[in-house]
This record gives sequence, C-alpha cells and structure tokens, in this order.
Amino acid sequence: MNNSYGHQFRITTFGESHGKAIGVVIDGCPAGIDFDEEFIQNELLRRKPGQSRITTQRDEKDEFQVLSGVFEGKTTGTPISLVIFNQDQRSKDYSHIADRYRPSHADYTYTEKYGVRDYRGGGRSSARETAARVAAGALAKLFLRQHGIEISAYVSQVGGLKLDKPYTELDLSKTEDNIVRCPDAEMAKEMEEFIDSVRKDRDTVGGVVNAVIKGAPAGLGEPVFDRLHAELGKAMLSINAAKGFEYGSGFEGVSMRGSEHNDAFYTENGEVKTRTNYSGGIQGGISNGQDIYFRVAFKPVATIMKDQESLNEAGESITVSGKGRHDPCVVPRAVPIVEGMAALVLADFLLRNRCSKA
Amino acid sequence: MNNSYGHQFRITTFGESHGKAIGVVIDGCPAGIDFDEEFIQNELLRRKPGQSRITTQRDEKDEFQVLSGVFEGKTTGTPISLVIFNQDQRSKDYSHIADRYRPSHADYTYTEKYGVRDYRGGGRSSARETAARVAAGALAKLFLRQHGIEISAYVSQVGGLKLDKPYTELDLSKTEDNIVRCPDAEMAKEMEEFIDSVRKDRDTVGGVVNAVIKGAPAGLGEPVFDRLHAELGKAMLSINAAKGFEYGSGFEGVSMRGSEHNDAFYTENGEVKTRTNYSGGIQGGISNGQDIYFRVAFKPVATIMKDQESLNEAGESITVSGKGRHDPCVVPRAVPIVEGMAALVLADFLLRNRCSKA
Amino acid sequence: MNNSYGHQFRITTFGESHGKAIGVVIDGCPAGIDFDEEFIQNELLRRKPGQSRITTQRDEKDEFQVLSGVFEGKTTGTPISLVIFNQDQRSKDYSHIADRYRPSHADYTYTEKYGVRDYRGGGRSSARETAARVAAGALAKLFLRQHGIEISAYVSQVGGLKLDKPYTELDLSKTEDNIVRCPDAEMAKEMEEFIDSVRKDRDTVGGVVNAVIKGAPAGLGEPVFDRLHAELGKAMLSINAAKGFEYGSGFEGVSMRGSEHNDAFYTENGEVKTRTNYSGGIQGGISNGQDIYFRVAFKPVATIMKDQESLNEAGESITVSGKGRHDPCVVPRAVPIVEGMAALVLADFLLRNRCSKA
Amino acid sequence: MNNSYGHQFRITTFGESHGKAIGVVIDGCPAGIDFDEEFIQNELLRRKPGQSRITTQRDEKDEFQVLSGVFEGKTTGTPISLVIFNQDQRSKDYSHIADRYRPSHADYTYTEKYGVRDYRGGGRSSARETAARVAAGALAKLFLRQHGIEISAYVSQVGGLKLDKPYTELDLSKTEDNIVRCPDAEMAKEMEEFIDSVRKDRDTVGGVVNAVIKGAPAGLGEPVFDRLHAELGKAMLSINAAKGFEYGSGFEGVSMRGSEHNDAFYTENGEVKTRTNYSGGIQGGISNGQDIYFRVAFKPVATIMKDQESLNEAGESITVSGKGRHDPCVVPRAVPIVEGMAALVLADFLLRNRCSKA
Repeated sequence: MNNSYGHQFRITTFGESHGKAIGVVIDGCPAGIDFDEEFIQNELLRRKPGQSRITTQRDEKDEFQVLSGVFEGKTTGTPISLVIFNQDQRSKDYSHIADRYRPSHADYTYTEKYGVRDYRGGGRSSARETAARVAAGALAKLFLRQHGIEISAYVSQVGGLKLDKPYTELDLSKTEDNIVRCPDAEMAKEMEEFIDSVRKDRDTVGGVVNAVIKGAPAGLGEPVFDRLHAELGKAMLSINAAKGFEYGSGFEGVSMRGSEHNDAFYTENGEVKTRTNYSGGIQGGISNGQDIYFRVAFKPVATIMKDQESLNEAGESITVSGKGRHDPCVVPRAVPIVEGMAALVLADFLLRNRCSKA
Repeated sequence: MNNSYGHQFRITTFGESHGKAIGVVIDGCPAGIDFDEEFIQNELLRRKPGQSRITTQRDEKDEFQVLSGVFEGKTTGTPISLVIFNQDQRSKDYSHIADRYRPSHADYTYTEKYGVRDYRGGGRSSARETAARVAAGALAKLFLRQHGIEISAYVSQVGGLKLDKPYTELDLSKTEDNIVRCPDAEMAKEMEEFIDSVRKDRDTVGGVVNAVIKGAPAGLGEPVFDRLHAELGKAMLSINAAKGFEYGSGFEGVSMRGSEHNDAFYTENGEVKTRTNYSGGIQGGISNGQDIYFRVAFKPVATIMKDQESLNEAGESITVSGKGRHDPCVVPRAVPIVEGMAALVLADFLLRNRCSKA
Repeated sequence: MNNSYGHQFRITTFGESHGKAIGVVIDGCPAGIDFDEEFIQNELLRRKPGQSRITTQRDEKDEFQVLSGVFEGKTTGTPISLVIFNQDQRSKDYSHIADRYRPSHADYTYTEKYGVRDYRGGGRSSARETAARVAAGALAKLFLRQHGIEISAYVSQVGGLKLDKPYTELDLSKTEDNIVRCPDAEMAKEMEEFIDSVRKDRDTVGGVVNAVIKGAPAGLGEPVFDRLHAELGKAMLSINAAKGFEYGSGFEGVSMRGSEHNDAFYTENGEVKTRTNYSGGIQGGISNGQDIYFRVAFKPVATIMKDQESLNEAGESITVSGKGRHDPCVVPRAVPIVEGMAALVLADFLLRNRCSKA
Repeated sequence: MNNSYGHQFRITTFGESHGKAIGVVIDGCPAGIDFDEEFIQNELLRRKPGQSRITTQRDEKDEFQVLSGVFEGKTTGTPISLVIFNQDQRSKDYSHIADRYRPSHADYTYTEKYGVRDYRGGGRSSARETAARVAAGALAKLFLRQHGIEISAYVSQVGGLKLDKPYTELDLSKTEDNIVRCPDAEMAKEMEEFIDSVRKDRDTVGGVVNAVIKGAPAGLGEPVFDRLHAELGKAMLSINAAKGFEYGSGFEGVSMRGSEHNDAFYTENGEVKTRTNYSGGIQGGISNGQDIYFRVAFKPVATIMKDQESLNEAGESITVSGKGRHDPCVVPRAVPIVEGMAALVLADFLLRNRCSKA
C-alpha cells in the first residue's frame, strides 16, 4: 500500500508537516514485548530538528503518545498507535508558496497526481513523516534486541568528504559522540565545518549513511522478489532525499572477478563463517548469518535559502525566494531513520521466517 | 508475498532451474491488450542463454505456452499463465553438489531457511527464474506501449570498462547491434574482448546496466513507502546478482550543492519541463513527466570454473570444483530483465494511479 | 492484515475499549472528496451507546478529530486519520474480571493467542472498535454518493419477531423513525417492547439486519475469490456478534428450482434489467446493476447481568457475576455498522474496477 | 487480489473452462510437507464431473501435473505449481452463446466489467476453476493433518429435503458411502431420487453443505477483520453458486437469549472445554479449541436444459436454448470444495498465528 510498509510487522504512517499530528499504526507487532517508552522517545530525539546548529532550527518537541496496543507495559498483539501532535504549525509562513512549485520538491508532482495538495511545509512529502518511522522503528529495535540483533548506522560521507575505511575498522560506539554522527572524530570535525560553511552559503549538500546489522540469523529474506537486500533497498530508497543504495561490495564489486568476490565458507567453533564478506551477509536474497552492511546516498535537500527560477500553478514563470529555516545537510539526522527502517525490515522478515518450515 | 511482485498488475513466478517448468501467472492485467506472442517470444530470446559466445552455453529454447487469460488474441482480464517447459534437465550434472555449499551461491542460505533444497542447478535461486519475469515484463511493455511509454536498457560498464557518457549522448537504438548490448560500438568491442578473456580465465566479472524510461506521465508512484524509485529499486535489486541501484544523480549527487542539484521548472509549448534532470524524473517519489533513468550494479556471478574452498552439509571442509558451463558476464543478458522489471513497476503504478482522484 | 480492511480504499483500525483512544487510518481514499464532518459525526451518533433506553447506558460522546489527510475541506489523497478519545475509562469496574474468562467473550481466546490481554471492557474485542469503522464507512458513503450509490440497512428481526416483507414493500425512509430502526412502525413497536422485557430480565437477544444497495453500476467485484458477495460476507461477519450472512435468495433459495431462480434479462428504456432478482444484484461475483441486498444474523451478545459458570486463568471453576451496564439487543446499533462496512466494500471495488480495462 | 486467496499460505488460481489448462500456484507452503500425490489426485476425483449419474456428464480426467516446488517427495518452500490440462475442449458447443447472456450466469457481468469475455463454457466463471482450489486444498489438508486438524463436510439439504440432525449425532465416516454425500443413508436415498427427478425435468436444485473442523488449536483467527469465521465465510461464499454462510448457532441463534446462548467454560482432565458450543468453536473471531462448524447454502445452478428469455450483446430479446449437459444438483460435488477451502483458511491462520507472540 501507499502508506504502509511491511508484511507481518506492518506500519502505516499518517500526517502532514503542518497538520494536527503525525503518527503511525503498527499492526502485527507480536505480544509480550517490553514497551520501553524512554528508548522510543530517545530515538525520536535523535531524529528531531533543532538538535544542533547544523540542522534546521524548526522547533518540535516530538513527544509521542501511545493511543493503543500497550497494556501494563507490554505490547498486546493489537495495533499500536503512536501519535506526535505538531507544535510548530506556522501555516502563514507557507502562504507564499501556496500556488508555487518549488524546484525539486514534490509540489508539482502531488498536484499532478491528486489535483490538490496541502502546501504547508510540504504537507505529506515533508521529512517530518519520518518521525513516525523512527518511532515504529524503535519498537522494531526492541523486538530485534530480544533476538540479539543490533543495527548501527553512521555518516560516512558529506559532500566530497568521504571516510574511506570499512566499518570493521571503525569504533561504531563513537557515532553519537559528535553532531555529524561520523564515528571518526577527525573526519567528523571536517564534516561539521563543511556543513557549517554550506549553511552560511544558505545552501545544502548531500551525503552517505552506512549501516551494519549484527546478530541476524541465517534464513531471513524471501525468494525471489522479497529478497532481504531488495526490501532493505526499497525501505532505504523510501526515505526522503535518498538517491541510491548498495550492499556488500556494491557498485565497486562490479570491477571484481568472481574468483575474488566469492566468499569462501569455513567453520570456526562449529559455526559456519565466510572468509570474506563481499556478499554483505546476504546470499540468494537470504541472510547467511554474517554481518549485513549497506550504504545509502542522500542528495542535497531541495529547500535552500536562495532565489530560484520556477513556475506557479498557472504555468507562469516565477521566482521562488528562499526564506525561513533550512537544513544544510540532512544525513546526520538520517542516521536514526536508516536504523529504524532497517529494523522494520528485519522485524518483518524475522516473523515471516517463522513460516518457512512445516 | 515471497514470489509475487506488484499490487494491481501482479505477477507470481514459479519453477526451478531443472524442474519440469518455470512460469508466471499475471493477475490484474487489464482486459483488451493485444497479446503479441511474437513480441513476447522475442523478449525471451533476448534473455535466453546461448545467444552468443560470451554467455553460458546452456541450451534452452525458452518457448512459452499460454495456458489461460488470452482469448481471440486479447487479454481478458483474467489471470494469464505463461509456462516454459525446461528442455535441459541434466540433473546428474548436479549430483556432485547435492550436499555441498557453493561459495556465494544460495545453497547454504536455502538449506538454513527451509531445511531442504532442490540442488539441481541452483533450483529456485537460479537466474532461470528471470525468464518468467521477462515474459511477464514483455506483456507489461505491450500495455505501456498503448500509453506511449518506452523503456530502454543498455550495458554501461563491464568490470573496469565504463562508458562515461550520459544516455542523452547515446543512440540507444544501437544497443542490440552488438552482443554486449552497449550502444557505443567502440566500447562494446572492448567489453566483448574483455569478457572473452575472462571466460578463458574460467572466471566471471560484473557490470552495470543503465535504463531510461521515456513517455511516463506525471503522477506515477505513491507516497510514502511505495515511491516510484523505491519500487524500481526493489525490482532491480530482486534480480539475481544485483548489488546496487541509483537513480537520477545517484551516488554522485551527494557531492553536489542544492543550488546546483535543484531542477528549475519552465514551460515549453505549454508543457512543464525542468532545465536539468538530476531528479531522474521523480520528485517526492512521483514521476514528473521528465525522463526517468537509473543504474543497476551486478556483481561477478558466483559460478566459476575454478576450484574453491567450501563446506558440505556436514560442516566439513571441501573443495568445490568448477565444471560444466558458466556465464562470464551476465550483464548483457540482464538488459531485457531490467527492462522487463521496470515495465512491471510502471504498469503497476499506471493502474494504481487511476485511483488517485475521486 | 489483521486490523486492515480493503485493497485500494483501505482502513486500519486501532484502539481498545478503555484505552486512551480508538481510531482509524484510511489509506487510498481518493483526493477531492468533500469531507463533510457533520455527516460523519452524525453517523457516529447513530452507532453511539446510550441513544435510547434499549441500548447500553455507557456514556460516550464519540466526538472524532481529524489528524491528517484533509485540507481546506477536501481529502488530499494522503492517509486520513480519525481519532475518538475515550471519555469513559472506568477501569476499576473491570478489575473483577481481570483473571476471569467471561463465557462466549474473547477473554479466553485472546489469552491463548497472545499470552496477555487488555481485560478492561473487552479491550480490543469490544464492539467499541466498530465506531472506527462507522467513521471510515461514513467517508466511504460520501465517496459513493458522488457516484450515485446509496446503502440502507434496517432491522428485520429481533429474537423471534420477524418482519416478513421484502425490502421492496417497505418504506426505508422510515427506518430512523423509531429506536429499533425497523421501517415497519407496528413491528418496531413490538420489537421495542420485547427488547425492553429482555432488558428487564437482565438478558440479551439477537436479531437480523437487512441491507439494500441502490445505484451500484455493473462490474463491481472481482473473480474468483474477491467476489462482491464474498467480500460483503467477510465484512459483515467481521462485525461483533455476527453469525450468518446471506444475499439474494440466500438460504431459502436452496429449495428453488433453477428454472424459477434464474433472473431473466430484458431491457427497459435501453437499460438492461432482470425480471426477478434472486441473484441479489450479483452474478458470477460481479454486480449486474440491479439492487444488491443481503441479510446479517447477530447472536444475543454475551454480556448479561446474570451469574454464570466459568473458569479463571488458573483453570479454577468460578462464577462470573453480571453487573454494570448491558446492551439487551445490539441490532439497532448494528444498522450503521452494516451500512458503513458495506460502503467500504463498495468503495474499494469501485476503485479496483478502474483497472479492469486497458 | 482478484485471483489469490490467503496471506501466508497463498494460492493463485488460473484458467478457463475450455482453455488450455487450469491450475494453481501455491506460494508460502512451508517446506518439508510430504507431498502425497495420490491423496491430492483422489481429492480431485471427488470433485470431478461425471462421477455418478446425478452429476454433469462432462468428461474430464482431472489429472494434475506438478510443475514446481516439490523435490524428492517433499515441499521445498518454493511455489508449487499444479496444472490440469483440459481434455474436453468442445469449443464449438458454445458458439451459440457467444453473443448471448445466459440468465443468472456471469456472461453479462463479465462483459460489462472487461469489455470482452471467453464465452466458451463460462470461461473463468465456470465451476471448473474450483478443481484448482481442491488441488491446493488437498495440500493444505496434508499440512493440517501434521498438526492434527481434520475437516469433514457433508450434504445436509437438497431442495426442501433437510437432514435435521446436528453433526454430533451423525457418523461422518459414512459420507462417501453414497453419491449424494449425505451421511444419513435413508436421507441420502431420498435426496438421490429427488435429484434424479430434477435431472429428468432438465432442471436444477440447490442445497446445503455442512462442515466440521476437529482438532484446531485455540488461537487461530485474527482480530478484527480477519476473524476466523469471517475468512471462512469469504472462502465459502467465493465458491460458485454459494448464497449464504452461517456458523455455530447461525441464523437460528438470533432467537435465543444470551443466558441460553453463552457457552459455559469448564475443565475436563485439565483441558478447557465449553458445556455447549453455540459459538461454533470461535469466540471474538479466534478459535477456542472446540469443534468449528458451519453451513453453506448453494442455489440451484443456472445451467438448465430449458428455453429461457434473455438478451444478446446488442440488447435484443432472444431465447437461450438449453442443450448439452447439465448438473442437476452441485452440492454433492461441492463437498470436497468446501473442505478444500476450509483447509486453506485453516492453514493460513495456523501459519499467521506463529507470529502472535514475541
């Protein structure tokens, strides 16, 4: 469906940037999970705007309410509805774009598709919708944790600044130590300064988020369309501003030879392992028990504080003026979204896999 | 579902590499499409093994039969079942791998997931399954053609050989002029020679397929999870050996500034256009009427003719010996698969979009 | 999914009887429908408890809030979230049943399925959930109205009191004239008195709701599983306390001969009609343009004010004491629920049918 | 989807009455089930036309082929494709109805919906499609048998002849002892004679099939839309000629009082049981471990050997002449279809229930 994701662990998000509320209904979450409100709230804070000087200054508390599905601190198996009421409904700020198509936004495409659009702050196409995903993803993380699965994402590139180390050489516990969410302190500093300069230019820049999933058992993912990496890809590409996805050896792997790329099997203490992991933990679309890792490219977001050529609904040439607040680089805030979406994918496959054997 | 793809125009594929048959059921194909059998057969021939010296020599005629859903040359709105009976059932060739896990194949993961596996030729995980997709995709193409939408894919990279021209500078009508399916004759020749050398090494190499969709109207794609590019990504990543997907500016776009990346709107003869197309024809997950383009990375396939270290089902170290036939580079044959899957995605969204307005 | 209904016009309900709120997310509602809040509120009032002396005296205002998906009075094509906050959270009333299985309630089955249950007022299994359906169904009605489709339900039986007239001999505009919602004033009076006597007995009684759909075009419904009547049946049987469904000639039709039961086609003013309508407006699972009509049986609800033999969670024999408030006969309040669910079925098929032709 | 049923254990049927073949793809069948071909073939023979003098004399062998998903006698977890090639393709028999709408058939509604129709033998709307369901249902039965669940259906009514005994007073092992499939020998004889007389009248008559499911564990079914009885209802109503469904106390239960209808819980040898079973083994939409039982009404089928008033595609009055072969009463053949569909519903919920707890 349009606004639903997942098959067994299924979420439906709703809400517009400047409407009354945004939220999510989680249907199919198993009963008996400890519903750790503080953890979920904390995940939301990681995504929240206004965390640091390098993100948008929009002021949202992003406090969520539980409307259903939790009883005496545990999930009950019935749908869990989480809602965040919008605080910052400065609708008048947006009247100047009511009939204007901002370049590379969804204004034009929504209007073409639906005939109408909620133009306040991008309406449904606003990245605000991802708060609902992060809340649902946090619950998925709690479920995965019970099964020993942990997901860590981090920023590996901002503009041309690229951290050229594999995750195996990084200390991912340091990701949250800086506002860029890059586990390499030195690179983080460079990135931070760069984002700051872009912000002062009233411009934006893109970046890359890497993610690693540890502890996933073999057997997750389904042939042939719902391959684990295909669903991860879809989930990641569904995040605002995402432009690309690769897992394991990715685009670089195309230059390798099969004899080099194949991951030899061996056993260590009775456990099946692979000597290399160009497969990214996924073979034939199904997890093989090794680390799963992937990368997501994000474009520079479209909201800039500069004047731009465009059209209004009447098809007349206009100038869209940059004003208000903007997010010079979204990738630091994309980190919890990437983790949350990955958690949703894994939770779904963990449940689906319960049906693979008679 | 596991073996189904699509929401309204929905396909379910079935069949194993060396079972009795492979096939597809297409449910939700509208009534009244001219069922051009010759066109569909021709698409299958483009994917078929043994087309040229640079592909596997497995000999399959890939002739399909229509079991249902077509009457007097037209689709009837009921499910269309297409079946290809397997000719080449040399099951004994595979006895030597019955209890062995080939590196970077799906042998191990299927066994972990299901407890059993059809080991003949990779069973369900064989790329043979993609013939069913190509047949269904050909039908989707016929539907799209009625709506003026055309899809063209081509090989842009083989190993390290990369065609560094945008599609706008290529003559895509020349793609089928050579066995590599690269529209640049000179580069095609280099690629062909390179693949030949890899084949002689009994090894494999990866590559990249690019695709362009022309004529898609604005409005295709759904917020927020089923974005057009997210579904394209999933569809492409579900093809065997795919490792990455990017659209529009893709991974390179991350280094750009927003002021540079934003695609300014203007009108030409009353039609809305964009001056650049870094968006890849998709904004907010919905097509904007410009060309849609994307790239898919394929790894070197795992079947090589060399001995490799591995394990058997008992967890003992073994050597998997390369023997039989192999495909040194799958990307030329991936071209019709990429096109077919893209056609399925577009057909599905074309139908879904009929429900967007009251 | 568990808590979702519909394919294109798809709803997901959430909420427990005595939790914070109940609600519904409607995904796939087309853009451009006039969102008549008053009409929706009025439908909710028709279902609300405490309307008259013959229903439960639970006091709920059932005022709904729109959280998303509506802008400037129109639906926008994005998910519409409607929420009703619960007023009447008298949780302590339910402490006496916390570990007890009430006979013929869902207490035992939920506990077996989920390991836990929200025992307050039946939690998710409470008929309170149907308020969310009525709200969503009201929106579906608004959509159907634009296409000239109207749905009317009424009470045709209460206990042994049965109105033995076909709908064609009734004036359905009189249904709301009495608190039983039976369009025959005389029968209504008898039913009302009977329900009153059952109430005084601290007991309950069942009944039958009939429904008629006028104005549905030919072509709605899908072969072969999603037949129009099969979906209507599922939708009706999913209402609390429903025990049976029949359409057209129904159970009585089994005694007829084919020569008698077949509905002869003829034309009237160029319109195709049938001389009889034993088919109930549906042939081969697809609407034929004639009136669609069906009947739904409801059992006497399980909450009675009498002591009953039962078990507690420890498996010990106990007595469940009747206390508090009860609903002697739910069928009058079932009328708007039947209509709402029928509207959801029709709206879904109306959209799906847009994809039947190329 | 249109031609798919089930969520986890999901089938898609295809094929027309007089096309090349009919068949089914079963996706989501767990790996490791013994694929008992003989059992499946035998179930098909129970449904097959021409079994006795009281069914249609159409001659179909109904021998099925397995195209995929089974290896070394076991299901592999991949899609199982079963195909029955049509023997009896007497297309010319149907030329006389090519442009005519037979009363109470799907001719008119398919034409309205799709613009075209395969008129040969009713095409997709033919009851022949149910052979595919019976084959899939037989596999579901094999799966259920591993879990101790057995389904028995039988004929309880033909025309006005009604067997007025509850299933608990019948010996269901005698159902297959006579051609009517009524376990009461005396009633069976009456029914048989009655059907014979109807056949001689060149007419048809309806009937009722009852079914009982024994051994289903508590916990099957999902709140709130996918209740066990709602899905059973949909599945049954999707069978050709079905007009009504009721479970447990059904339509008769509406006249009861709650104090009478409530099923008191008690324990016997530590097992939870109910003293009565008006609930039909389902409470709150979820199985409670008691017997599940229900009834399905079938109308007299529309194909009769008499002349009837109707219209052609041009809207002109015509006479449809009865000729060829006809099925005077389909209910005996409906017995294996009812069982098969019930098996599919149960198998699906058995798998879905694996996801209810963390």
